[in-house]
Amino acid sequence: MTGRRPSLAVVGATGVIGGVMLQILSQHEDVWGEVKLIASPRAAGTKLVVRGEETEVLPLTEDVFDGVDVALFLVPDEVSARWAPIAVARGAVVVDDSAAFRLDDDVPLVVPEINSHAARLRPRGIVASPNCTTLSLIVAVGALHAEFGLRELIVSSYQAVSSAGRDGVAVLREQLALVAGTELGTRPGDVRRALGEGDGSPFAAPVALNVVPWAGTDAGDGWSSEELAIRAECRKVLGLPDLKVAATCVYVPVVATHSMSVHARFENEVAVERAHEILATAPGVVLFDNPAAGDFPTPSDVVGTDPTWVGRVRQSMDDPRAVEMFICGDNLRKGAALNVAQIAESVAGEFTRI
Amino acid sequence: MTGRRPSLAVVGATGVIGGVMLQILSQHEDVWGEVKLIASPRAAGTKLVVRGEETEVLPLTEDVFDGVDVALFLVPDEVSARWAPIAVARGAVVVDDSAAFRLDDDVPLVVPEINSHAARLRPRGIVASPNCTTLSLIVAVGALHAEFGLRELIVSSYQAVSSAGRDGVAVLREQLALVAGTELGTRPGDVRRALGEGDGSPFAAPVALNVVPWAGTDAGDGWSSEELAIRAECRKVLGLPDLKVAATCVYVPVVATHSMSVHARFENEVAVERAHEILATAPGVVLFDNPAAGDFPTPSDVVGTDPTWVGRVRQSMDDPRAVEMFICGDNLRKGAALNVAQIAESVAGEFTRI
Repeated sequence: MTGRRPSLAVVGATGVIGGVMLQILSQHEDVWGEVKLIASPRAAGTKLVVRGEETEVLPLTEDVFDGVDVALFLVPDEVSARWAPIAVARGAVVVDDSAAFRLDDDVPLVVPEINSHAARLRPRGIVASPNCTTLSLIVAVGALHAEFGLRELIVSSYQAVSSAGRDGVAVLREQLALVAGTELGTRPGDVRRALGEGDGSPFAAPVALNVVPWAGTDAGDGWSSEELAIRAECRKVLGLPDLKVAATCVYVPVVATHSMSVHARFENEVAVERAHEILATAPGVVLFDNPAAGDFPTPSDVVGTDPTWVGRVRQSMDDPRAVEMFICGDNLRKGAALNVAQIAESVAGEFTRI
Repeated sequence: MTGRRPSLAVVGATGVIGGVMLQILSQHEDVWGEVKLIASPRAAGTKLVVRGEETEVLPLTEDVFDGVDVALFLVPDEVSARWAPIAVARGAVVVDDSAAFRLDDDVPLVVPEINSHAARLRPRGIVASPNCTTLSLIVAVGALHAEFGLRELIVSSYQAVSSAGRDGVAVLREQLALVAGTELGTRPGDVRRALGEGDGSPFAAPVALNVVPWAGTDAGDGWSSEELAIRAECRKVLGLPDLKVAATCVYVPVVATHSMSVHARFENEVAVERAHEILATAPGVVLFDNPAAGDFPTPSDVVGTDPTWVGRVRQSMDDPRAVEMFICGDNLRKGAALNVAQIAESVAGEFTRI
């Protein structure tokens, strides 16, 4: 390695995604110089282990970014919106996991397996990482797009509760404890009555023994913000401004790993054998597709792993240009921390290659 | 009422769907004369309550059908295949809930809200009721088809475990008891290890804290039997032999009520306001669609009720002829026993109108 090891800041180090990021920094080849862990003043002062060293969490201030080359923002939208430009002004390249800048024309939206080149052109000094639902499917879909030419995506999600943060996981675990060992689930309203009003739940309905077809906020015309994010982000990452996308986002009682049922229509006819070849060799993808032998991805197989897993690949019976697939990806790893780390490592390469 | 009250036989009275049928027979307007409850010799002799009367369950024999006008078959495919023709030979009209005759050209496949007329023409003396997944969506889709002209369905299911019978429910409850109160669900394979090999489970993977993208048997080319059933049955019930259908069937940890994410493309443009009007007034449909107020159907709202519930209705952003919807229906009621009862009641009308 020539050049110098860039210094890194992890903003939001004490959150769910921050915790996964610290694991990844300890697991991946270490390209970093100093690593600063940063959180809100309330969470600062605690000590966390990264790269085998106990490290004190610093409070988020303007001065903390002095001397930082790359700053990872793993925080809510409004925190990124305020603080990312400050980090840039202090000299850092920001890699942002929030939605604050994803659709900004001057901010590249990057999935390294698909458009790593885009991370080098960043007029605002910020690189954005997509939503976890987009990330759970786009690596696999992007690999097929490169060969067949993607025209339309119709996707339904089976989303894990951890994408609603610590509260989502806590609410599912509380609700499971209340319904386990009961006969609930067969009479009108019995689950809802047993679980009470769900005050403070991030979900609009019970999530144990249930599925909840609503994720994010009201985006108008009946759409949720998460559904429109998938459309806009797939278009931007793939460079297909006219791509047809229709998404339905649904929470399921799974802790971590998003699953997506995908109908993908291409410009050209898709032979399953060729799709299998592409997916079996695509970077970041695991093909796990032999249903007669019980081989298809499920969240319990995929959680904690890095790749996007693909199974149930079949040519649509009524449209030879379309394939159906079932795709799983850990929403906390590739869906969040891993993609940010990959972007950051490619930015780090700019320093080490100087 | 003129004519006479026809006599009824319920074959499979001791099963999950049989139990729901006995409730329905007690709840609906009583059009029946004698009601015989029938089960395998092993389950015969027990006493069950129907229409307020304790009734002994009779063993399945040829003679038991003597004097029966209408026989409901709520049993596995192979039992229907063998015994339905025997019941017909003894003079009964059979309404069959199994897959044995659904695609037989000489057997009508009936959803009373859509094609009740078809039940009157039954060359083999048998009327079939569709699969629970088909039934969970077809009443709503059929209502829109009548106005807009259906061309394509792309559906992903969120299927309840009770469609795999008593074993499915028992396995989910056992698995929930093992995972509740634990921190399982975030490490590779932790759920699968905690739950063991799942011997005797009808699911090919853990169903607690998981989703399982496989329902039914291997139907070739990567498809499951349940997925192809939706295609063939929607075509037959709607009378659209060229309808494009692509289905993905996925079990979720819900006890009862199937949910379906539906992309429906029509010949004509679909205005959401008009779709709302149609769904709000269609027989057998409840429109529950105001997501900003938290109004969308979930299994816990719908279980134990008769109608098909529809929400999340929105025009596809990139295709004004297509709508997205989220549809829920109780797989044991409209998805099985209720539809059979409705068909049987329309057949009963032939007797009472004599």
